[in-house]
Amino acid sequence: MRFNKIAIIGVGLIGGSIGLALRKKKLAGQITGVCRHQASLVRAKKIGAINSGTLDLKEAVINADLVILAMPVKQIIKTAKMIKPFLSKGCVVTDVGSTKEMIVKQLDKTFSQQAYFVGSHPMAGSEKKGASFARVDLFSNSLCFITRTKNTNRGALNKIDAFWKSLGCRVKTLSPGKHDQIVALISHLPHLAAAQLVQVARGNLKFAATGFTDTTRIAASDAEIWTDIFLSNKKAVIAAIDQYIKQLKKVRNLIARNKESELNREFKKIKLLRDGLRK
Amino acid sequence: MRFNKIAIIGVGLIGGSIGLALRKKKLAGQITGVCRHQASLVRAKKIGAINSGTLDLKEAVINADLVILAMPVKQIIKTAKMIKPFLSKGCVVTDVGSTKEMIVKQLDKTFSQQAYFVGSHPMAGSEKKGASFARVDLFSNSLCFITRTKNTNRGALNKIDAFWKSLGCRVKTLSPGKHDQIVALISHLPHLAAAQLVQVARGNLKFAATGFTDTTRIAASDAEIWTDIFLSNKKAVIAAIDQYIKQLKKVRNLIARNKESELNREFKKIKLLRDGLRK
Repeated sequence: MRFNKIAIIGVGLIGGSIGLALRKKKLAGQITGVCRHQASLVRAKKIGAINSGTLDLKEAVINADLVILAMPVKQIIKTAKMIKPFLSKGCVVTDVGSTKEMIVKQLDKTFSQQAYFVGSHPMAGSEKKGASFARVDLFSNSLCFITRTKNTNRGALNKIDAFWKSLGCRVKTLSPGKHDQIVALISHLPHLAAAQLVQVARGNLKFAATGFTDTTRIAASDAEIWTDIFLSNKKAVIAAIDQYIKQLKKVRNLIARNKESELNREFKKIKLLRDGLRK
Repeated sequence: MRFNKIAIIGVGLIGGSIGLALRKKKLAGQITGVCRHQASLVRAKKIGAINSGTLDLKEAVINADLVILAMPVKQIIKTAKMIKPFLSKGCVVTDVGSTKEMIVKQLDKTFSQQAYFVGSHPMAGSEKKGASFARVDLFSNSLCFITRTKNTNRGALNKIDAFWKSLGCRVKTLSPGKHDQIVALISHLPHLAAAQLVQVARGNLKFAATGFTDTTRIAASDAEIWTDIFLSNKKAVIAAIDQYIKQLKKVRNLIARNKESELNREFKKIKLLRDGLRK
């Protein structure tokens, strides 16, 4: 799997880590990074994530056979439309956005003549931001979702599948809608739940121990990125919150009514589920 | 700070770690462990957490000047009452139970003639169980709550304060009721919240990434221990759940009404609070 020129638009934690992994595995002839700030490009070049950097979108994507939109959800659609006129024939465009339905719905058809779009969502990252936190092994053994719809070009899908696998990911292909439901439950709701734990305990945070800090680590993530995620996955996130509240009320009432054996059964079942997860 | 004989009743993760630290720091002439199972005593002795072990409570506490009830909440009161007749004059009894009001209310007066009781709650531990997971540094730089009421003997309180400090803890002295409110918010609610995240995501756990596993780690804790904790801190836990649900509903409605700037403000405030926590 090899590309002549890969353009990474947005060289933060994710874009930077993609660049580092690509260069280490020698998967691209050339990697060009694009960013709105010169300083970010300098940093990305310094850590070896890109061969060259530019502030100019057109210059970056010209002659690229792969373009990766490594930016927050909100900017992906806008940027994709801006680069469209400059893409070479057969170029494959993908993204790393945390929600997929809104993005894929808009880009699926837009990119079906000259270039192709396939949505991606690598489930890797951290509460940190910026290329300084990029890691060559960020994607090793991680999961990457890629989306397929009736408009998806099969050749492009295969290229994106192979691309993430070459970076060390397990790949799961699914519809954008199914993707958004899953991440609402395993990523968006946990984030929101952790954040509200901090909010509720705000007067007593000085007493927090390891359990609390682990549980709420993701609440230190960037506020704007998460606001975008929640708003671009509104339906599934609200359904997840409602299900969560229902479940919390159920346990609340078991506690209120001293239902010891029911509580025991409930927590045992949950412990078994949790024990089954990789650490 | 030195004791002639310390009896540790219950040599699991906490009791075992206390023993390891005491022996390393040479703070006791003799440490006797008590347990219901011979195998646990053998394990505790093998790792060096106790000098001797016995299945007999009376034998363990006779001549002890410090007795530590290192067992789940439910067994503490019962066991404390069983050992009472055998305690030497001036012996100080403490516990490590995760809730304090119920325990202290019962033991405070019971132990005010011959021996004295002071409630403790070291905020250290893990989702693991048993002396095999004991660590000599479990209490280093951790927080330990100790309780004071109108019945608390001042000399005994000072001894327990010095005891935990000698193990490396920061000590916070407060009333049992205040303790229970604080831990409901920083420990009990987070546990319950994490557990219900696992429950709600149960069909999709195979897609979980680091964020989810960190957030839900505490849900792998022992079910019975936690059922006891919730039921012995019912009032404060229910108040914490209600406050949490209220907060979740507020955010849910901000999402439903596309309140981007309010959401941003909310998550920024929370990020700042979380950033202020030790990692």
